[in-house]
Amino acid sequence: MSSERLQADIETNAEFGAIDTDEGRGRTVLTGSSADRAAREYFVERLEDAGLTVSVDVIGNIAGRWVPPEADPTAAPVAVGSHLDSVPQGGIFDGPLGVYGALEAVRALQESDITLDRPVLVVSWTEEEGIRFDTGLLGSAVAAGVTPLSEALSLQDDDGITVEAALEDIGFRGADTLDPAGWDAWFELHVEQGRELESAGASVGVVEAISGITNCRVIVSGEANHAGATQMYQRRDALAAASQFVLDVEQAARDVANTMSESAVGTVGNMAVSPNANNVVPGEVTLTVDVRDVDRAAMDRIVDSARASAARIERDRPVETEFDQYRLTEPSGMAERCVSAVVAAADSTATDMMRMHSAALHDTANLAEQTDTVLLFAPSRDGISHNPLEWTDWVDCATATRVLAGAIADVAAESAHIPE
Amino acid sequence: MSSERLQADIETNAEFGAIDTDEGRGRTVLTGSSADRAAREYFVERLEDAGLTVSVDVIGNIAGRWVPPEADPTAAPVAVGSHLDSVPQGGIFDGPLGVYGALEAVRALQESDITLDRPVLVVSWTEEEGIRFDTGLLGSAVAAGVTPLSEALSLQDDDGITVEAALEDIGFRGADTLDPAGWDAWFELHVEQGRELESAGASVGVVEAISGITNCRVIVSGEANHAGATQMYQRRDALAAASQFVLDVEQAARDVANTMSESAVGTVGNMAVSPNANNVVPGEVTLTVDVRDVDRAAMDRIVDSARASAARIERDRPVETEFDQYRLTEPSGMAERCVSAVVAAADSTATDMMRMHSAALHDTANLAEQTDTVLLFAPSRDGISHNPLEWTDWVDCATATRVLAGAIADVAAESAHIPE
Repeated sequence: MSSERLQADIETNAEFGAIDTDEGRGRTVLTGSSADRAAREYFVERLEDAGLTVSVDVIGNIAGRWVPPEADPTAAPVAVGSHLDSVPQGGIFDGPLGVYGALEAVRALQESDITLDRPVLVVSWTEEEGIRFDTGLLGSAVAAGVTPLSEALSLQDDDGITVEAALEDIGFRGADTLDPAGWDAWFELHVEQGRELESAGASVGVVEAISGITNCRVIVSGEANHAGATQMYQRRDALAAASQFVLDVEQAARDVANTMSESAVGTVGNMAVSPNANNVVPGEVTLTVDVRDVDRAAMDRIVDSARASAARIERDRPVETEFDQYRLTEPSGMAERCVSAVVAAADSTATDMMRMHSAALHDTANLAEQTDTVLLFAPSRDGISHNPLEWTDWVDCATATRVLAGAIADVAAESAHIPE
Repeated sequence: MSSERLQADIETNAEFGAIDTDEGRGRTVLTGSSADRAAREYFVERLEDAGLTVSVDVIGNIAGRWVPPEADPTAAPVAVGSHLDSVPQGGIFDGPLGVYGALEAVRALQESDITLDRPVLVVSWTEEEGIRFDTGLLGSAVAAGVTPLSEALSLQDDDGITVEAALEDIGFRGADTLDPAGWDAWFELHVEQGRELESAGASVGVVEAISGITNCRVIVSGEANHAGATQMYQRRDALAAASQFVLDVEQAARDVANTMSESAVGTVGNMAVSPNANNVVPGEVTLTVDVRDVDRAAMDRIVDSARASAARIERDRPVETEFDQYRLTEPSGMAERCVSAVVAAADSTATDMMRMHSAALHDTANLAEQTDTVLLFAPSRDGISHNPLEWTDWVDCATATRVLAGAIADVAAESAHIPE
């Protein structure tokens, strides 16, 4: 395989939606934006350059299909990939490493003398981050039958633009379908977005379980009023009440992480204050709670604490609260057969590998109910991601891609050996 | 005087920038908006209908001048007015009651047989609320020499549009100047925006002192990171840290109100979270602290506590804080001569009047160093303002306007009597 070719692809992709930043290297690639269009068009070009047959499905997922010379074109394919969209001011590896790592693995297999029995699909999923349309893992959820297509297409952004219109606008509302239930296996390479690999000095992680995730929307309603003329005892300050809630969620997640499951996390990441003027006591605050763990009981404990906090705040302060747990994805286990293929590929290239959990959710979680799946991690410097400072050394990108190629080969052909 | 004419003017003015709202009656009139232009054009029309000579000054303040038949046109005028702009989703009385109450008082005096010795000015100040350009009381600050004209004109909104361009855009960048130092006196009628009059069952308040105000901008910097993969102990969560700060400011203001000066208030009214995505640990929060009281020492106590909170949070959590006290307006006392004129006018019409402080800042505070000033309050239902539920009964509007007219007459002519 060529680490230079992989690096060149990721660096070219990083130009789409690139942002000005003092430190690091960032990009903003929201689904259906011009940056997304450019990233997708370049990816299609690179698939075609490698001789893959490209299709775009009904929710904009892109797949490149390669039928190896000796393979049975009707055999269940091995699929591999990730996503190309990003959070606002995100990093350049989160998603693209897995997409271009998959393509580079295929190119390496094409150039090797390994005989493969099955076709290989290289896939990029739509709207993994869920920023513009507030629903992450969207493309894989539709492919896996978790979310009905009509529901996904009619999701709207803040301006009332639907997913369907956004995809049509960039020319990526396709007609094909992807059926993960018909796949032999699914592999995804992703950056860790944590510090475990770095701390352990390992080059690759093989994930045995992915955290579940649940989201709750909380609305705190008080009364907007003049910040000068409303005395302290007369106030119904929604922001002060919401601030107590944020601290309670943090404390609950810390307690659960310390006593029950150390990987458990709880976050209030966004907050909208109304009317948000410096001379008005805030009348309403809307915020989202994000809770994740591989242990469903630990997740429930944090959500229960958050719900109890909202109720307590409503009793203690002159505000009302609404608490809506609107999303729940269960924790999911990976297939032992795929995990073993990754372990074998790492062993045969003498790569330092560690078994771990993923606290971040990935498209792989949607696919785990449909086919045998596994997730591979490459190290993230300082654990930083969703930030221009996100970084994975190019040598680590190449090492993980080499293991990925070996694992694909292992699954796609009993007789396969690791490509050099 | 005609309460119907006053009500009709305020209700017509309420149509400019009117918003859809389930309850109450709201408007959004930001400086330089099309709603502001419409409100100003209607006001000019009504001044001219009443025979006043209209001028627009260099910062867009509008003045209508009336020289009573027996008056000396060269005598120092008595000026009276308020403002027409609003906060986002504000009420219909905050500002317009004082502007149209001033005009109605003049019309009442014109129709009476009172002999006045001095000209009367009816004034509407530019950008009182300070929403679009983040600097309140702007028009009166320029007129009073508190803010240099060039500085005021070059203030920018969030889109980089200057005050000068915004005023030119709506045709209200004038060439005249207003000189409060040359005025005999200044009167402003405003809604109370508090509950004191309502609680006391009084129809009019005469303000003896206006609270000072100080604003501080606080930036809390942590590190944006993945909400799933960043374990609790690894986080540098700017929103959790900012939440602690919000609660500390609330507690400090409550403590000072309970122990030192009951009118003291401290508010965090706006907050910007970055990147503000539900799956990202917040990396930065910017917020504003607003502190007010008639007692400067009480204000300082709250600001000192807020500064100490920021320092403590920086010690206790892995975040950095910046604390910038960027604005300070001292508390100001009203002129006994003007207060007495209001008291006499209320007495002679058997109006229930109470002496009080203003916790809300007003243009009058800027003028108090330049001339003799007084502020009158009309009751606010439930103390609500800066909200579509803001309400002052029409009969209270009329009563306060009658007292205003009497007080103007008292100051503008020794021999004057209260008009009916």
